Amino acid sequence: MKNCNLQSPGTKVSQLDTPAFIVDLDKMENNISNMAKYCKSKNINLRPHIKHHKTPEIALKQIQNGAIGICCQKLSEAEVMAQNDINNILITYEIVTEYKINRLMEICKIANLIVLVDNPKNIKDLDEATSHFNTNLGILLDINVGQNRCGIEPDSHLVKDLANQVLTAPGLQFKGIHGYAGSIQSIVNFEERKKADKESMHKSLIALEQLNDSKIPVEIVTAGGTGTYNLTTQYDHVTEIQPGSYVFMDNQYSAVLNDFEVAGTVLATVISKPTSGRAVLDSGMKSISTDQWPPKIKSHQGISVNTVSDEHLTINLDSEDSKNIKIGDQVELIPGHNDTTVNLHTNCFAIRNGIVQNVWPISAHAMTR
Amino acid sequence: MKNCNLQSPGTKVSQLDTPAFIVDLDKMENNISNMAKYCKSKNINLRPHIKHHKTPEIALKQIQNGAIGICCQKLSEAEVMAQNDINNILITYEIVTEYKINRLMEICKIANLIVLVDNPKNIKDLDEATSHFNTNLGILLDINVGQNRCGIEPDSHLVKDLANQVLTAPGLQFKGIHGYAGSIQSIVNFEERKKADKESMHKSLIALEQLNDSKIPVEIVTAGGTGTYNLTTQYDHVTEIQPGSYVFMDNQYSAVLNDFEVAGTVLATVISKPTSGRAVLDSGMKSISTDQWPPKIKSHQGISVNTVSDEHLTINLDSEDSKNIKIGDQVELIPGHNDTTVNLHTNCFAIRNGIVQNVWPISAHAMTR
Repeated sequence: MKNCNLQSPGTKVSQLDTPAFIVDLDKMENNISNMAKYCKSKNINLRPHIKHHKTPEIALKQIQNGAIGICCQKLSEAEVMAQNDINNILITYEIVTEYKINRLMEICKIANLIVLVDNPKNIKDLDEATSHFNTNLGILLDINVGQNRCGIEPDSHLVKDLANQVLTAPGLQFKGIHGYAGSIQSIVNFEERKKADKESMHKSLIALEQLNDSKIPVEIVTAGGTGTYNLTTQYDHVTEIQPGSYVFMDNQYSAVLNDFEVAGTVLATVISKPTSGRAVLDSGMKSISTDQWPPKIKSHQGISVNTVSDEHLTINLDSEDSKNIKIGDQVELIPGHNDTTVNLHTNCFAIRNGIVQNVWPISAHAMTR
Repeated sequence: MKNCNLQSPGTKVSQLDTPAFIVDLDKMENNISNMAKYCKSKNINLRPHIKHHKTPEIALKQIQNGAIGICCQKLSEAEVMAQNDINNILITYEIVTEYKINRLMEICKIANLIVLVDNPKNIKDLDEATSHFNTNLGILLDINVGQNRCGIEPDSHLVKDLANQVLTAPGLQFKGIHGYAGSIQSIVNFEERKKADKESMHKSLIALEQLNDSKIPVEIVTAGGTGTYNLTTQYDHVTEIQPGSYVFMDNQYSAVLNDFEVAGTVLATVISKPTSGRAVLDSGMKSISTDQWPPKIKSHQGISVNTVSDEHLTINLDSEDSKNIKIGDQVELIPGHNDTTVNLHTNCFAIRNGIVQNVWPISAHAMTR
């Protein structure tokens, strides 16, 4: 069977097979550059989170623009990034089983790694592994700054105890604290977000002061995402931020702030138009996620989303103009949540002036282990 | 970098790296066998939908058990299945662009294909393509039997008009009608589901009678999914059903019927236990979908799901017993919706007696084009 399922650079967007995740290069480059400039102006390090775009080519662009390295959530994402010449990686996750720790040690051989810990047994396991594999591993204490997910409490004795345990482990390097509050990133109201961020910053400061009191040197305090990048960077004790979603943006983050433009969208095609008021697109939940905010129509006025099923998206043609839409026409959609949408795609099409410039493999797509 | 990310048959489930989509072989084989036996007893053809499991090995098992072929939703799924020796494929979708029609013609060279149409221009395009590529293609009219998505109205003149258009197209073979009502599959109350199915069956009968009146021969009337398999099969005019979810089941379908057992689950690991009442699993929305019903804990009593974020699932340890759970322990989860969960995984682990028997690539994973 001849493989027709490849589209190359040079293809016109209007000829792209769909559903496709497309990236507006001008907008994405602006987003990457603007975040880098802002962090530089605040004299704060930028370590973007690649769980958003999962694409080595984009991570490399972020580093070329001045990012000091990247964050990954999953070990398998870090494996992909390390194999693509990215050698400064913070895994913002607890790595706890023997199988995963062995994989972690393999990455340590080719990249500088930092991971989170919130538990003494895990520190012991990581220490023994570095000794066995003759490697080095950076460690951040994971502090619960309000999300109530992983992480020790900032006022717990564990802050000093775990830091001291790391300090006495030959293969582990104590780096500092991780105080990321995911739950406040998407608070739409600015004053409420600012207040929540302040509370979260206060918690990270409590943990930091415990370490300072014990004369434990702290190199890194990482906090802040896209929703709080301009809040977290106002605090002197924060050394780096880890925003992800500013690269592509989405409906959720567009409601939170307008400092960055939507650069990552899903291109779909009308496959059916049974009535003058209804049409069906080829982009269901398996190509555009619905876990947070719903998708929005970008390319047309007078069209609204009716229902999204697994492989269909039914739209209402509300205006006289939109009723002219035909089977085969393309419709561009803004995902509600791009992190989970990008993860549904195996490649993304980088577009400039209506032409595909690059087809990038989303190499960390489906890397959940 | 040494590749540690491969786990082979023979691995104990307790040693599996997570998050992992695991399949209980005994239960899955029972589900496949029971559905096949039921259809045989009703003298109705079974053409299971692979959009649920996306795995050629499982499709082949269904055929070995007596299924006449398979249904695919997307062209790329059909490409994968045809390349894996499945040669009787109904694509329950409209294939409308030149690019996709060319791909469709390539599959026609190695498999017997049927597609849906609901539009005269599309029939013309398909006819021209079969002439150009010297192929044959089966055609079903897509009838709107209540879902209000794709498909012509059953009482429309288009039923006869499109059928006649297909009959006069040399490369196209008119096969009959597609009257699938997705929206009623998951109505929990049996009497309500039965009533909705009856209305839907009535609509397919209206379309069928139009064709009978015109002496247009109808070989296939396909309808019914997992939620209506035992309803649709009671109607004489239906020749085949297309259930998908009975293979793995999920929370959504378990609430609808208990004729099949949950065979497909997600295995996760506790990565953090910050308090005696809270723990965190490594299976967020990127490994277990949340678009329909929420995930449920299968392996433990006294644990409830708190929040699901992209890569974390926070659980409440509600009982004294569940408070004993440790970091590194495995937790088995029943997805709310397995179609969208399976699509997040690149392989599935087929388990018998606590041992991995096979690691099957989910080859149609992420095949959305």
